[in-house]
Amino acid sequence: MSTGQPIIVLVKPQLGENIGKAARAMLNFGLTDMRIVDPRDGWPNPSAGPTAAGADNVLEEAQVFATTAEAVADCSHVYATTVRKRGMTKEVLTPAAAAEDMAAASGKCAILFGPERSGLELVDVELARKIITVPINPEFGSLNLAQAVILVAYELSKLDGAETVQPTIETKKREPAKQIELDQFYEHLERALDEAGYFYPPDRAPATKVTLRNMITKPAWTNEEVQTWRGVISALEKPFVKK
Amino acid sequence: MSTGQPIIVLVKPQLGENIGKAARAMLNFGLTDMRIVDPRDGWPNPSAGPTAAGADNVLEEAQVFATTAEAVADCSHVYATTVRKRGMTKEVLTPAAAAEDMAAASGKCAILFGPERSGLELVDVELARKIITVPINPEFGSLNLAQAVILVAYELSKLDGAETVQPTIETKKREPAKQIELDQFYEHLERALDEAGYFYPPDRAPATKVTLRNMITKPAWTNEEVQTWRGVISALEKPFVKK
Repeated sequence: MSTGQPIIVLVKPQLGENIGKAARAMLNFGLTDMRIVDPRDGWPNPSAGPTAAGADNVLEEAQVFATTAEAVADCSHVYATTVRKRGMTKEVLTPAAAAEDMAAASGKCAILFGPERSGLELVDVELARKIITVPINPEFGSLNLAQAVILVAYELSKLDGAETVQPTIETKKREPAKQIELDQFYEHLERALDEAGYFYPPDRAPATKVTLRNMITKPAWTNEEVQTWRGVISALEKPFVKK
Repeated sequence: MSTGQPIIVLVKPQLGENIGKAARAMLNFGLTDMRIVDPRDGWPNPSAGPTAAGADNVLEEAQVFATTAEAVADCSHVYATTVRKRGMTKEVLTPAAAAEDMAAASGKCAILFGPERSGLELVDVELARKIITVPINPEFGSLNLAQAVILVAYELSKLDGAETVQPTIETKKREPAKQIELDQFYEHLERALDEAGYFYPPDRAPATKVTLRNMITKPAWTNEEVQTWRGVISALEKPFVKK
């Protein structure tokens, strides 16, 4: 099922009931593409069906992936939903602003939702270009998974009608590189830096790697740009001119 | 508790769990005034507390009435939420339009939500001046009570707190690096690439340099990020580990 709609990605969901509720929330607003990353209780999960309340199709067509990176490999725009402040330099959008952003985007969009209890891990947020945060009562933040999904789906559906009015205006903008190309670039960069002795002292390496990844996911480079960067790194790694 | 906020009126709710969920949905968006009309299982209902997930205050302060008419007696504007078309002559609003309507209204506003299974009866809808309908997938209308409440509460909070809630969520965004820092980074990169023999063949160098510059100005990196990139280039240029 390829609808061109944003894809809802549930990262490590715990309860099947909540996966079902998320499916129901999605279908209420016409979203049908669900991807599930490493569900705690495996998949399919018999607890999901009853709470889907008829949105069985969404569950049946859901794709399961081992890692978040694989789940969004073919997506050009990845959004992470978070409630907490992360002190990150990524752009933070409301659901309404994110819906507009996605409507204007070329290429597939994916929206990451974290596990019920803990939310997205830093390593998943790193994959995202932008962050979606629901502006919530600061003294009582208690949105559950399906509620977060429904608010985002609702905002997307609001634009749906408006979107069809102006299809010809968008000139062929170059699509941002797919997530998998960024991953490969990052791996290349990390390997090169590792060989160059860049990650020193070792205990600071994890934080440095987070920074690097965030710097790479931020710009929405095109495929050509990513290839250029890879050329840059290769050249520095193995100079054509001997020093 | 008189907050001047719209009042959420649950008409003949069936399950205590759903009353708790509605309270939680409300408080997420700062609504605290709940009224309950003729709850099936009486009130207080011990099943409500756990699903309120901490929104106990809303439940404790909830007022109970025997009839819908009594519950909204002191309200100047009554809205009925329905999913089905009723063939009525009342104005039908989306949640967003209703929120604007309420923000502009003087006097207390109340929003009626019907029982889980059947929705509002005609006699309750009659009390309302206007109708709120969530524009939902026509082939799959399956909003539950708490979801209907949360969408309305969310829209209300967007108008209400648009100014006050937002700024705390947006963490202090780091300013993008100044152009001079980008220039210095570019010069550093170009020098390193030149020494590595990257610009070959020479007649293609000008175009390649334009590409590189564009890639660097695109992301709006912060100063810290630019410094990190410079560290990356330096490391590759002069590896700490000899190859």
